[in-house]
Amino acid sequence: MRICFVGDSMVNGTGDPAYLGWVGRVLQDERRRGIELTGYNLGVRRDRSDQIRARWRAEVEARLPAEFEGRVVFSFGANDAVQEIPSAATLGHAEAILAEARACWPVFMVGVVPIETQGARGRCGALDRAFASLCDRLGVPFVSVFDGLMATPVWRDEVRAGDGAHPAAGGYNRMAEIVLASSAWQRWIRSAA
Amino acid sequence: MRICFVGDSMVNGTGDPAYLGWVGRVLQDERRRGIELTGYNLGVRRDRSDQIRARWRAEVEARLPAEFEGRVVFSFGANDAVQEIPSAATLGHAEAILAEARACWPVFMVGVVPIETQGARGRCGALDRAFASLCDRLGVPFVSVFDGLMATPVWRDEVRAGDGAHPAAGGYNRMAEIVLASSAWQRWIRSAA
Repeated sequence: MRICFVGDSMVNGTGDPAYLGWVGRVLQDERRRGIELTGYNLGVRRDRSDQIRARWRAEVEARLPAEFEGRVVFSFGANDAVQEIPSAATLGHAEAILAEARACWPVFMVGVVPIETQGARGRCGALDRAFASLCDRLGVPFVSVFDGLMATPVWRDEVRAGDGAHPAAGGYNRMAEIVLASSAWQRWIRSAA
Repeated sequence: MRICFVGDSMVNGTGDPAYLGWVGRVLQDERRRGIELTGYNLGVRRDRSDQIRARWRAEVEARLPAEFEGRVVFSFGANDAVQEIPSAATLGHAEAILAEARACWPVFMVGVVPIETQGARGRCGALDRAFASLCDRLGVPFVSVFDGLMATPVWRDEVRAGDGAHPAAGGYNRMAEIVLASSAWQRWIRSAA
C-alpha cells in the first residue's frame, strides 16, 4: 500500500535530527507489525491550507497510480492559525481538499499541533476542534493530537529548546505514539480499501 | 538550507525498514557534522526521466521559496534502463531538467544504481557513464555510485533477499557512505550558494 502524507512542517519532520518525524516513525512501527507501506512525505514548511489545496492533487496523482492501493493522510492548520487566517477560510479549504480526496482514495486526517508562537496555541486548539467536526460530518476518520501533545513535557521542552515551534526526536516520537494508539488510525490502516 | 531530492524509488528509499533510504542517512550525517538541512524527498517509484521532467519544477518551486537558500539533488535513470528507453531520449530529458534547474538553484546529481532485473545492469552502467559526461559538460557536480554498489556484498544480498531491485537498510547505508565520501558532494554541500 502506498500512502501520501500531505501537510506542513510537522509532516516534514522539521527539527528532528533523525529525519523521521512522526510520519517515519508511524511507517517504521506499522512495518514492524507486518504492514509494509511505501510512504510519500509531502509536508512543506509554512504551508497553509490554501497552498496545500493548490498542490496536493497533482503531487498525490503522481504517486498513487490506479493499479496499486493508495491512500492519503492530511495534517495541516497550524500555519493558518499562526498567520490568523479566518477559520471560515481554512475550513473551506479543508472541506474542499477532503471531499475531493475521499472521492478518489481512502483519506485520514491528523489534527492540529499546538504552536506556542505568536499566541497561536488557542487558535490551534479551536481549529483542531473544528476539523474534528468537519471530519465527522464528511465521514473522514480523524485523530486529535492537541491535548496529548500539550500533556507531553518532552514536546514542550524540545520546542522551547529548538526554534520555538518544532520539537525534536522525542516530541515527534510521542506524536507517532498518539496516532498509532488511536482506534481511528488502527481501524483505518487495517481496513480493506 | 533546504534541499529537494528528486528522483525514483531509490530516492524514496523503497524497501528500507528504517524509512530513511540513502537520503535520510545523508541528512542525518550532515547534521551530525553541523549542517542542519531541511530535506524534501521527492522520489517516486517507477518514475522515468520523462515523468520527472513533467513534475519536478512545480514540486521544487512549492518547497524552495526565494527567501531561503535552496538546492536540488537529482537521481534517476534506472527505470529508463529497465524499460529500455532509448538513451538519447533519457539524456534529452536529463539535460533539459539539469539545465533548467541550475539556472535557478545549485544542482547536484547522483548517478544510476545497478538494477539486476530484466538484464538492466549493463544499461544502468552505460547510462551512468553518459550522465557523468553530461554533468561534466553542464558543470553539474556528479557522483557515481554504480561501481561502489556493485562491489558491496550487502547491496546485492539485500536486493536478492528483497524484491529483486531494492536493497534494505545496509544497502542504502552504503549508498549514503559513497555519496558522503565523494569530494564532489563535500565541496558542493559546503560551498556558498
